[in-house]
Amino acid sequence: MSIKEKWIKYIEDLQDRICGELESCDSKAKFIEDKWEREEGGGGKTRVISNGNVFEKGGVNTSVVFGNVSDTMKSQLKIDGATWFACGLSLVLHPINPFVPTVHCNYRMFELYDENEESTDRWFGGGTDLTPYYLFEEDAIHFHQTYKRVCDEFDASFYPAFKKVCDNYFVNTHRNNERRGIGGIFYDNQRATKDQDVNFWIKFGKACGNAFLPSYLPIIEKRKNCSFTAENKYWQEVRRGRYVEFNLIHDRGTLFGLKTNGRTESILMSLPPTVRFEYNYQPQPGSEEDKLLQVCLQPKEWINV
Amino acid sequence: MSIKEKWIKYIEDLQDRICGELESCDSKAKFIEDKWEREEGGGGKTRVISNGNVFEKGGVNTSVVFGNVSDTMKSQLKIDGATWFACGLSLVLHPINPFVPTVHCNYRMFELYDENEESTDRWFGGGTDLTPYYLFEEDAIHFHQTYKRVCDEFDASFYPAFKKVCDNYFVNTHRNNERRGIGGIFYDNQRATKDQDVNFWIKFGKACGNAFLPSYLPIIEKRKNCSFTAENKYWQEVRRGRYVEFNLIHDRGTLFGLKTNGRTESILMSLPPTVRFEYNYQPQPGSEEDKLLQVCLQPKEWINV
Repeated sequence: MSIKEKWIKYIEDLQDRICGELESCDSKAKFIEDKWEREEGGGGKTRVISNGNVFEKGGVNTSVVFGNVSDTMKSQLKIDGATWFACGLSLVLHPINPFVPTVHCNYRMFELYDENEESTDRWFGGGTDLTPYYLFEEDAIHFHQTYKRVCDEFDASFYPAFKKVCDNYFVNTHRNNERRGIGGIFYDNQRATKDQDVNFWIKFGKACGNAFLPSYLPIIEKRKNCSFTAENKYWQEVRRGRYVEFNLIHDRGTLFGLKTNGRTESILMSLPPTVRFEYNYQPQPGSEEDKLLQVCLQPKEWINV
Repeated sequence: MSIKEKWIKYIEDLQDRICGELESCDSKAKFIEDKWEREEGGGGKTRVISNGNVFEKGGVNTSVVFGNVSDTMKSQLKIDGATWFACGLSLVLHPINPFVPTVHCNYRMFELYDENEESTDRWFGGGTDLTPYYLFEEDAIHFHQTYKRVCDEFDASFYPAFKKVCDNYFVNTHRNNERRGIGGIFYDNQRATKDQDVNFWIKFGKACGNAFLPSYLPIIEKRKNCSFTAENKYWQEVRRGRYVEFNLIHDRGTLFGLKTNGRTESILMSLPPTVRFEYNYQPQPGSEEDKLLQVCLQPKEWINV
């Protein structure tokens, strides 16, 4: 099996496993699959879930796409080559209960080829980040600890570096650099080196992908039956507004996809189901809402590193 | 009075008149004013209304701002000069009732100065556009007719030209070029010429600004007491999602403001109060919802020109 085939097999298998476990966890809603094809080459499997016991809306998507390197790609992605290939999984889950955090993860591989279809470049990227509406420190620690453990098995420098990249990426710069959540890990443009070859990066991507369920399911189980008020839901919808702002104003992947004729419905499955935009909404200083806001404004180290 | 002073006086007076009439129309909610100052020069008056009988959320903002021409301005606005000045009014109203359309308008003047504070360039821009959730042809005709009448008093070529600019501006290119509504007029970069001097453009801006209330209030009065169902509200919230997408992904003014340290809360007052994002939502073919969607996909001539 080529590197490419190995990665595709892993990504598709991960999608199946994640969807299966999320359905069990929800115990009401089932994923609906839309298979789509891209005129320029390849396609994907978009799987969405909605109106469940746990998940108000969510998607677990994979795509395997390829084509000629376009001018937009050359200028926006700063790449060069004749043809390209990309395969990845991307998921976003928006739970009903404001005490259960929203989560996003994405793992992908990119390859470039010359005129003779020889691979000339290959890189890996991905990450998982958590967007709670209320802060439970033990949940934040559990989530970060899970990824730190994975990272540490590969390279002790990864967790602190990738945690920082994540904190610096999911930022609403137009809102005093408020983060959309409490982060996680994020890495990009990782290429094979002498010490960390292509198999190393595939293994790392797999280990991160496999860590998604153990990082998130225990938090759902702990919080999904918490009772909540209309005020808690209101706050969740206000914060979801910030999620929308980040995704539509700043997220490179979303904007690149929308501006290069990507499949709009698959890209925008990330948007929350119900959202509020209120003029100048400020939580009460010292309230639980404010505590969450403060850790979004000032990213924290959740684990002694 | 200088040109600048005349325009400021007009804009601030227009804000007062519009807010007064909208309060009477709503008969419950009042505007709340936030005065703000800009570190780099100038400031504004943001007036917001919410939870009224008619208006769920809205803002009628003015700003009088000036400063040094920055590098961002040079590259993004393609302008050159030492200092600049801008003054305008911007409003967005989101009614509760899905049968009352959302409306947006904006009228502004921009000036550039050289090192000796001599005015070297000056231009005007603006427009008003309507975003209904259900199509009432007579309302669309009334709205367009009002602006056509204003345009025709100045130049017979204006209405067809500015209607087209509007149709081509408020477009969600990532959604099959769906327009956010049924348009109106929009013009930009209008400079004095031999035949149409600066007073001509000031008069035109004033006439358009003055036409806002007669273009919109009669539509509110006709529709505000229509009874509506949860399904009508649902559709309104789905369409509001498209409004959010346009404003955050495509609107030049919004993005420029957010990326150049504009006042975020004043800029984002344009976002609707409650919004839904549903995966692949499609109205029933032939339904009232679909009729609206079709005129957004295919802009129509509302008046024989």
